[in-house]
Amino acid sequence: MRRELFTPDHEAFRQLARDFIAAEVVPRYAEWEKAGRIPRSVFARLGALGLLGTAIPERYGGAGVADYRYNVVLQEEAARAMVTLGTVRTQLDVILPYFLAYADDSQRQRWLPGLAAGTTLSAIAMTEPGTGSDLAGIRTTAVRDGEHYVLNGAKTFITGGLLADLVIVVARTGHDPENRRAGLTLLVVEDGMAGFTRGRVLDKLGCKVQDTVELSFDDVRVPVANRLGAEGDAFQFLGSNLAQERLTVAVGSVAQGFAAVSATVDYVKQRKAFGTPVASFQNTKFELAAMSAELTAAQTMLDRAVLDLVDGELTAADAARVKLFCTECQGRVVDRCLQLFGGYGYMTEYPIARLYSDARVARIYAGTSEVMKVIIAKSLGL
Amino acid sequence: MRRELFTPDHEAFRQLARDFIAAEVVPRYAEWEKAGRIPRSVFARLGALGLLGTAIPERYGGAGVADYRYNVVLQEEAARAMVTLGTVRTQLDVILPYFLAYADDSQRQRWLPGLAAGTTLSAIAMTEPGTGSDLAGIRTTAVRDGEHYVLNGAKTFITGGLLADLVIVVARTGHDPENRRAGLTLLVVEDGMAGFTRGRVLDKLGCKVQDTVELSFDDVRVPVANRLGAEGDAFQFLGSNLAQERLTVAVGSVAQGFAAVSATVDYVKQRKAFGTPVASFQNTKFELAAMSAELTAAQTMLDRAVLDLVDGELTAADAARVKLFCTECQGRVVDRCLQLFGGYGYMTEYPIARLYSDARVARIYAGTSEVMKVIIAKSLGL
Amino acid sequence: MRRELFTPDHEAFRQLARDFIAAEVVPRYAEWEKAGRIPRSVFARLGALGLLGTAIPERYGGAGVADYRYNVVLQEEAARAMVTLGTVRTQLDVILPYFLAYADDSQRQRWLPGLAAGTTLSAIAMTEPGTGSDLAGIRTTAVRDGEHYVLNGAKTFITGGLLADLVIVVARTGHDPENRRAGLTLLVVEDGMAGFTRGRVLDKLGCKVQDTVELSFDDVRVPVANRLGAEGDAFQFLGSNLAQERLTVAVGSVAQGFAAVSATVDYVKQRKAFGTPVASFQNTKFELAAMSAELTAAQTMLDRAVLDLVDGELTAADAARVKLFCTECQGRVVDRCLQLFGGYGYMTEYPIARLYSDARVARIYAGTSEVMKVIIAKSLGL
Amino acid sequence: MRRELFTPDHEAFRQLARDFIAAEVVPRYAEWEKAGRIPRSVFARLGALGLLGTAIPERYGGAGVADYRYNVVLQEEAARAMVTLGTVRTQLDVILPYFLAYADDSQRQRWLPGLAAGTTLSAIAMTEPGTGSDLAGIRTTAVRDGEHYVLNGAKTFITGGLLADLVIVVARTGHDPENRRAGLTLLVVEDGMAGFTRGRVLDKLGCKVQDTVELSFDDVRVPVANRLGAEGDAFQFLGSNLAQERLTVAVGSVAQGFAAVSATVDYVKQRKAFGTPVASFQNTKFELAAMSAELTAAQTMLDRAVLDLVDGELTAADAARVKLFCTECQGRVVDRCLQLFGGYGYMTEYPIARLYSDARVARIYAGTSEVMKVIIAKSLGL
Repeated sequence: MRRELFTPDHEAFRQLARDFIAAEVVPRYAEWEKAGRIPRSVFARLGALGLLGTAIPERYGGAGVADYRYNVVLQEEAARAMVTLGTVRTQLDVILPYFLAYADDSQRQRWLPGLAAGTTLSAIAMTEPGTGSDLAGIRTTAVRDGEHYVLNGAKTFITGGLLADLVIVVARTGHDPENRRAGLTLLVVEDGMAGFTRGRVLDKLGCKVQDTVELSFDDVRVPVANRLGAEGDAFQFLGSNLAQERLTVAVGSVAQGFAAVSATVDYVKQRKAFGTPVASFQNTKFELAAMSAELTAAQTMLDRAVLDLVDGELTAADAARVKLFCTECQGRVVDRCLQLFGGYGYMTEYPIARLYSDARVARIYAGTSEVMKVIIAKSLGL
Repeated sequence: MRRELFTPDHEAFRQLARDFIAAEVVPRYAEWEKAGRIPRSVFARLGALGLLGTAIPERYGGAGVADYRYNVVLQEEAARAMVTLGTVRTQLDVILPYFLAYADDSQRQRWLPGLAAGTTLSAIAMTEPGTGSDLAGIRTTAVRDGEHYVLNGAKTFITGGLLADLVIVVARTGHDPENRRAGLTLLVVEDGMAGFTRGRVLDKLGCKVQDTVELSFDDVRVPVANRLGAEGDAFQFLGSNLAQERLTVAVGSVAQGFAAVSATVDYVKQRKAFGTPVASFQNTKFELAAMSAELTAAQTMLDRAVLDLVDGELTAADAARVKLFCTECQGRVVDRCLQLFGGYGYMTEYPIARLYSDARVARIYAGTSEVMKVIIAKSLGL
Repeated sequence: MRRELFTPDHEAFRQLARDFIAAEVVPRYAEWEKAGRIPRSVFARLGALGLLGTAIPERYGGAGVADYRYNVVLQEEAARAMVTLGTVRTQLDVILPYFLAYADDSQRQRWLPGLAAGTTLSAIAMTEPGTGSDLAGIRTTAVRDGEHYVLNGAKTFITGGLLADLVIVVARTGHDPENRRAGLTLLVVEDGMAGFTRGRVLDKLGCKVQDTVELSFDDVRVPVANRLGAEGDAFQFLGSNLAQERLTVAVGSVAQGFAAVSATVDYVKQRKAFGTPVASFQNTKFELAAMSAELTAAQTMLDRAVLDLVDGELTAADAARVKLFCTECQGRVVDRCLQLFGGYGYMTEYPIARLYSDARVARIYAGTSEVMKVIIAKSLGL
Repeated sequence: MRRELFTPDHEAFRQLARDFIAAEVVPRYAEWEKAGRIPRSVFARLGALGLLGTAIPERYGGAGVADYRYNVVLQEEAARAMVTLGTVRTQLDVILPYFLAYADDSQRQRWLPGLAAGTTLSAIAMTEPGTGSDLAGIRTTAVRDGEHYVLNGAKTFITGGLLADLVIVVARTGHDPENRRAGLTLLVVEDGMAGFTRGRVLDKLGCKVQDTVELSFDDVRVPVANRLGAEGDAFQFLGSNLAQERLTVAVGSVAQGFAAVSATVDYVKQRKAFGTPVASFQNTKFELAAMSAELTAAQTMLDRAVLDLVDGELTAADAARVKLFCTECQGRVVDRCLQLFGGYGYMTEYPIARLYSDARVARIYAGTSEVMKVIIAKSLGL
């Protein structure tokens, strides 16, 4: 169906992204998967091409166009080529908004140019061992000591933590027995600060080009000048960016779902079973038709939500609906596609195997499907 | 999410429909279900209120606004009240387009005023015993004899056939061994013509207020002046209206799906099990949340398709995607909702039981889910 | 796969049942559906043939063989003919065990001969408006007054209540604030007792040959001699028969599931679509193959459970597993079968439509799927 | 429910297997996964313990008890410890039967002792690049030249091919235009034969401890004495062992499904989310309860089939039903279990991640779910 989301500017950006991915990502992707990360030089190339700074003000090296649709285009183009840009999604869609919204002028001058250029890499550290998504349960502490906070604690599941130059750490600066959500503060820890160490790189089922690590903070002295926003306000900051964070997962899910179907359509046309093209079996046709219908529903829902987000109208409950439906849809689609590849689908040299194992996390991170249902149910008055 | 489908004119029409349904349909619905039909007087009331003639030119008693969104509003309002308007949907969304597109001036003068006024009821007779949806297999014949066609054959599954004053009959006027689709013609049979009889009223699982009958034609002499369009052109006429016919089923499915969820939310809030409101169980919340997400996807997909239809841009394959997804979605939703009613859900006095049994046909008529998949698969090059 | 459940005695009984059903049930079934019940004379015929009294001691007119497999055979044979025996299932599998287990000698003499002969019909009245399956919430009261209990209250959803000569009523005879389950007693109310009236016959989605009614008790004086078992012990009686009650639902579900598949296999072989037998489509084959596999799993699980029950080894949790799986399986199967019938499946003259609407209650009565999950989860230590 | 499958002898064997796995497999499993294979020394240990030779005649170093239930026990015990024994399953359940059924006395003397001792490893090479499961399409040729066959061709997806000392190769020795199944012969290629080379080790989504390789044969001179069975008879040999090959996949699926549920039950009891044990959420309970019911159905179905196999009564269609149902069940179960682990489920250090990625191949190898449906449909007369 018609998509009325994109302007010629977006399409020009799309072409740029597509060319870059074809030329500089696809040929080296297998190597990055083995290495478990995308090299720093690639981020610098992305920055040089202007793909990282669309939302960053011009004076800091960006294009000054705060329009989430550019981020959508970037994910769509990566998916079309059956790759991802690793931690770029998290850095652009999840972390950058914190810098844009809460950094003061001096912080903007220090950090935004590097983020736009792709020479400064970032991560955000929320989850702690044993607490999961329960921000109110955070035990990492930051105690004020003159012009510094002394930071102690451990974080886990940190996407991009391995290479990050800047890590936004959610830390507890106060306790309010009446309000578990109070007393959380965002501090930007920089690479090289004493006491800041990176722990194990966790081995995952998929998403092999993006590292996921443990971080630990042992009496790290973080200057007060590295605090993002006011002390104690982190909880509301975190909440206000959730809709976009969830949407960005859905964007990937839908784009990768279409990529899986497209790759499968190609495969079944050339592959024969028992002397007949797999594409000629009615089961093949019906499976792909059903997926196509479901993905089209996901796409229209997502496009609607993107426009709502751009207009500042997307509710938390609708973001939850979109993430729930689109990621569950992706899960069903990649499973059915892989099946149509037969034994080849189980071999990692076939991209469908990667799409399958990458997809499994989408129903989990940025809030599990179960958390999404809790949010939606509340909006129904339940 | 935001719906950007409707103008203030549609909303005014919506209010009119809502008031009428609340005052004149809901109180008598159970009685109509028992009778197996909606009385003629109700159609006349609908006509008098202007609810039937929006698309009919003003000179024939209509409003002259060919805008499918009015039809959408009518179905949405019926569903919101957990009723349907019986054969109105078929008459307005499926049959009227044939009169509007193919009737000549004289036919328009004869028939459109009654259709606008709700005093002339209509049906379309395609399916024959044993042929199903395979139009090319039609065996009802019409043989030209001077200024008449002599019509012979039998039709079945005819919605609204019991009360119809005008029945558009698809008949074979010629054979082309090279082209099974050639040689079909539309003839308008009128109530009272000699040899035209109505057979059994078929008893259905649901959709009790709309009759489904068998018709037979035994040497019925139909004037050539009652032919719609050119001889032999029926196949292409039938095809060109399929997108709207399928969309109209999806419109009902989504609206009734939302009605089911809404009724269930209300029910679980007041109903207790083991001393606790059913709404407080996590299973209840998760079930309804999942349905809400899925229906929202269906709604955005449908709204997009309605706008595409209004703009003349809806493809057959996209109409198939919409029908497939929305009707399957409805099927899952009504089943899960009924379950949350427990034993009460199985009692027909609870509207959810009606929503459940009405829903089952949506995956079948206007082309089964399987036929939809065939169409979609073709569009994927399979 | 091999079934090692039945002996030659069971097979002889099976032949008797099969012949009776073919000769005396199938030809009149449509008429009984319209009437909403099976006539008393049929029960008497069943009794005369010895089909009702297998478990009743010989001295009271039965065969004295307490073997649940005869009940299995009876349901299987009804299902094979695509009918049910209406309230027979409830009377034999659910209610008779109470009489056999708790009636004293005098009560056995009064009631068992009529139950064996099919001249005395029975029902059990547990559910009350608003309490559902929560026995501890029962509000019908029985107050001792000399040699009588004075019974007051209302019951609903009573299967077979319309014709029942004997109704086992669960009533509250005491309150124990420490133990909500204490204080319930079984009283046998007889047809004709003053103050005992039958209310509305509830209209259901399916199961049309078995009546479901409301009963009310207004100062009904029930002799103490009509009490089953000791005062206050009803809760444990009710619990001890639950495994069999749930199994009996599963027996029907699996047998009717196979009947649906069998009818569908026959149908798709003779029915053509677009000039080709529906059986020749791969989708048709795959759908039926998947159902066949799933039903086979259900059957083996059920057979195992029946043997466990016969040996007194079936746990409540396993009975719950069997009911949950077999009824959910039936639900999926009848829905997929109906779809393969196309429009004909929606017409009640096709038995598949009846199998579909009958099936919907199986996931609800004798404990909903949700209640089954609660029981299973407990057995997992959750 | 009760399992009546195993005798005390099986249980003694079970204890032996359990102890061995706990002591010698579990501690080294992660290391084997990294290496992509289980070292030869482990096979020798298994042989020394008598775990490999139960079905091999005593004179060749086995126990002489041809009873498939020992193989079931071995897989069950591995699964209980959340590991597999890698290629042992294929060697014991799939390949050994060929040696037992078709080897002549001289071959038995040469090969069985090593197979029993675990010092001779084996593989079977059927699949070729581009032909999949279509045996009739095999293009590897063996041309008779005196007392040798000259073998040429390439095979892929060969489980255990990396270490195999003996590879049973399916080769074409003749063409019959009337019968595509004729002309296939089994030849045993030995490690070290000139022209026999092992190609790439394929990287798979899961099943990391068992290697899957490409093999190629370039003018390999295989002595006629290495032919298994008569020339041209391979097709029927391959068919006759399929029931057991499929059952063995189902055995693993069910056992691993139960292991997943058991690990998940343990996890949710100790893991907290939002301050509450995950086990206390109704969704957690219901998910695990549903899985428990479904797995119980799979287990009873499988046990029935194992007894049928042992008695020589298992049909191809029933083996297909069992494989289809049990592997699909496993797929659903591991996906739902992983979800209950949240983010940890995506980390390969948690065994659930391994169970998830191992499981995906079960619906594919030894005949895909689609092939199973074809077989079942035929048995239904479709």
